[in-house]
Amino acid sequence: MEPVNVNFLKDAGIGADILIEGLPGVGQVGKLVAEHIIHELDAEKIAEIYSQYFPPQVLIDEEGVVRLVRNEIYRYDNGEKQILFLVGDCQSTSAEGHYHLTECYLDIAERLGVKVIYTLGGYGVGHLVDEPRVLSAVNTPGLRKTVEEAGAIFEREEPGGGIIGASGLLLGLGTLRGMKGVCLMAETSGYLVDPKSAGSLLSVLTKLTGLEVSPTTLQNRATEMELMITKLREAEHARQNEELTYIG
Amino acid sequence: MEPVNVNFLKDAGIGADILIEGLPGVGQVGKLVAEHIIHELDAEKIAEIYSQYFPPQVLIDEEGVVRLVRNEIYRYDNGEKQILFLVGDCQSTSAEGHYHLTECYLDIAERLGVKVIYTLGGYGVGHLVDEPRVLSAVNTPGLRKTVEEAGAIFEREEPGGGIIGASGLLLGLGTLRGMKGVCLMAETSGYLVDPKSAGSLLSVLTKLTGLEVSPTTLQNRATEMELMITKLREAEHARQNEELTYIG
Amino acid sequence: MEPVNVNFLKDAGIGADILIEGLPGVGQVGKLVAEHIIHELDAEKIAEIYSQYFPPQVLIDEEGVVRLVRNEIYRYDNGEKQILFLVGDCQSTSAEGHYHLTECYLDIAERLGVKVIYTLGGYGVGHLVDEPRVLSAVNTPGLRKTVEEAGAIFEREEPGGGIIGASGLLLGLGTLRGMKGVCLMAETSGYLVDPKSAGSLLSVLTKLTGLEVSPTTLQNRATEMELMITKLREAEHARQNEELTYIG
Amino acid sequence: MEPVNVNFLKDAGIGADILIEGLPGVGQVGKLVAEHIIHELDAEKIAEIYSQYFPPQVLIDEEGVVRLVRNEIYRYDNGEKQILFLVGDCQSTSAEGHYHLTECYLDIAERLGVKVIYTLGGYGVGHLVDEPRVLSAVNTPGLRKTVEEAGAIFEREEPGGGIIGASGLLLGLGTLRGMKGVCLMAETSGYLVDPKSAGSLLSVLTKLTGLEVSPTTLQNRATEMELMITKLREAEHARQNEELTYIG
Repeated sequence: MEPVNVNFLKDAGIGADILIEGLPGVGQVGKLVAEHIIHELDAEKIAEIYSQYFPPQVLIDEEGVVRLVRNEIYRYDNGEKQILFLVGDCQSTSAEGHYHLTECYLDIAERLGVKVIYTLGGYGVGHLVDEPRVLSAVNTPGLRKTVEEAGAIFEREEPGGGIIGASGLLLGLGTLRGMKGVCLMAETSGYLVDPKSAGSLLSVLTKLTGLEVSPTTLQNRATEMELMITKLREAEHARQNEELTYIG
Repeated sequence: MEPVNVNFLKDAGIGADILIEGLPGVGQVGKLVAEHIIHELDAEKIAEIYSQYFPPQVLIDEEGVVRLVRNEIYRYDNGEKQILFLVGDCQSTSAEGHYHLTECYLDIAERLGVKVIYTLGGYGVGHLVDEPRVLSAVNTPGLRKTVEEAGAIFEREEPGGGIIGASGLLLGLGTLRGMKGVCLMAETSGYLVDPKSAGSLLSVLTKLTGLEVSPTTLQNRATEMELMITKLREAEHARQNEELTYIG
Repeated sequence: MEPVNVNFLKDAGIGADILIEGLPGVGQVGKLVAEHIIHELDAEKIAEIYSQYFPPQVLIDEEGVVRLVRNEIYRYDNGEKQILFLVGDCQSTSAEGHYHLTECYLDIAERLGVKVIYTLGGYGVGHLVDEPRVLSAVNTPGLRKTVEEAGAIFEREEPGGGIIGASGLLLGLGTLRGMKGVCLMAETSGYLVDPKSAGSLLSVLTKLTGLEVSPTTLQNRATEMELMITKLREAEHARQNEELTYIG
Repeated sequence: MEPVNVNFLKDAGIGADILIEGLPGVGQVGKLVAEHIIHELDAEKIAEIYSQYFPPQVLIDEEGVVRLVRNEIYRYDNGEKQILFLVGDCQSTSAEGHYHLTECYLDIAERLGVKVIYTLGGYGVGHLVDEPRVLSAVNTPGLRKTVEEAGAIFEREEPGGGIIGASGLLLGLGTLRGMKGVCLMAETSGYLVDPKSAGSLLSVLTKLTGLEVSPTTLQNRATEMELMITKLREAEHARQNEELTYIG
């Protein structure tokens, strides 16, 4: 077994101009957005990636069938646009593995002709956010204006700690291969899977890519999530009042 | 020294159709079951596995003699059935090591002709369990019915975190080699070595494999364990009453 | 991608006699001093170093443009002296990586003709220091007198834990290549980025190397820092008084 | 740089029959004993070992001169006996490194003709011990009687966790090369460097090897240590009485 194994399910006619990465991360925001688009556009899976840098783990589906943790590449082609999506179960368990895996992702992207990479993620702010803003960073100065026009903002040297993992390295290592890159990070609490944050991110991404993707499912999940949060808060409130009554 | 070293104690006539894995894990349930069967059927040791992925440690036997930590492969042959058992002292100390070791286990299994793998483990539930259920996951959808008929159950997407370590990877990586795989996980507290849980697992496994193995020794150990738990609880109870007396 | 990649921006005429290392560390003292000198002398960047031993991270500049974390080599030449500076974003994430990276730094130094290495750092003492002393250690007994005359001191077997990371290994591994080495460590609290401590270190280093570098900017930053600390202390004082008033 | 580097200071006439290992460990007991013997017998240093598996660190001597952390091999030859000593600053920082380093130590031992290995260590019991016993484990059943006659004891399956690090692996991996091995572990609190425990160990080791080594220095250090402990206890006692007086 090689450290990283890529199994192509389809070999011919899979070129693409754009790669959108939505691997697991803060608030699962990038993952939610990328998987939502794949589902809405009915994108086709073209590759599976296995690696010893991933956790030594299998996942179990609804039928009780296991499969190795893996990442996947999907492709969408409406005749005009060809877009790859990098999604999956996990990121690397080690610093070195992050570098190796990202080089592997870029090898695939380069081979298939990708010119622009969008990496998606959450930006943890530590509290619930009513109207999540979308922060951005780019790997080429010229990209900034377009990204701002699509609704994302640039905060001076934010995030201060930089961007860790695949979302950052795809841009940083992509530069060395002449690929343009945009990272979009929607504000999120960092405590919960956050479909509302994902909705904000989707809105910017569709403007940037020209993709037409209905946000309805994400919005419904966000509404459900808010109902749940409201109920949790009421229950907590009731519990506290009760305790006060006992003490009083 | 290679990263993994397999020393065969016997080379000829060691083919087998089935591999049963019972390495250390939650509640030592898998280990208890596999070692119990090896002992009851008087299976023969055919290989020892040493690896730098194991802890850097020697164990000491009753006579004060040390030996490197290692895993072992036993084989049982009653003329009709040939079964391998993978048991031992340890699992890998690193994520990458888990992948390497499992590939090594599968190399052996493939070479000896194994078609089906059973991996055994405990499913930690955080409290003592009176009648431990046996959960299962499979790597081939068609196996489910047989496993259910043998008394194991499938819970929708349980365990939620998947299966970590050799028990999971043997199934996940085994799929890529065309091997069928069943993981059996008996409920256990996760705090104690649990022979009762092992008894439940043994019952399902013997139905699945047709092996005839007396559960008596395991049952005796389970009974001893319960006596011990009862005594511990009574002692704790007595201590608490005493304290209350002092305070009162 | 190799484990360590060195990209030279300039190839010819870049020999040097001295290497000054100021990578991130306690109180960022070494980094402050080395970057201060580079800025004051307008040294020229001659190489960038990328490595999978670095954190898997990109940083974001004021314009929102990302770049991979990296270390850099600058060179200063006033006709008489040629000096290299090793500065940057990070050190290794693993013990083995520290050894590999240091060997790489020494390969560059050796190739460019370096005879003496100065490594700069902070010496964390756990409390604010009014007049930071500069401790030293050398890799060649004969160097001690000169270093003492420049104002640094040698404390018997201090620091007790030795010197960890690039500052230590450059001296230790440099010995094996016949390079002389001096480590300068200015006392610092360890809690804050410490320009005052950097000022003390600069004073010793300029005496040792004969470099003429104005300390003004560092002094200004130190004064600002002290104002800030004073204000923080007053605010804390006021808050405590207020609390006492409430309680009283 | 290779992962492990052995620099021989002397090449010819350095054969030996016995290897005594005293690397850092619980209570520094093994280290104290081995270094004591080296000093008393004026053994000669024949090799230095550097490795990227060691911590990335230099140590500073009394003169302020740094050196890489390293392990060392000494040799003693009184015409009748030739004995190697493995001592030094550190053990491996990783599990895999432990295996690699031990194989390297055994390569040296094998090449120089070593037939028997003694590994020395402390056995942490969590409290101060008045008369430390010396526990033993061997890698060859036949060795037990001789070891018991020299004053060490064998406790059934003790230490329960086996022996971790070089002291264990030298015996375990040594077996595979046909070398006999004895591990001696003197009881110690585990909190302090323990010369008294080292004294007990020395007594057994000299009987086993026939070496004549005066225990006086170790005894003096043990007496000093006990005085210090007594003073610490009295001071603690006084402080508690004072507190009680305040409260009363």
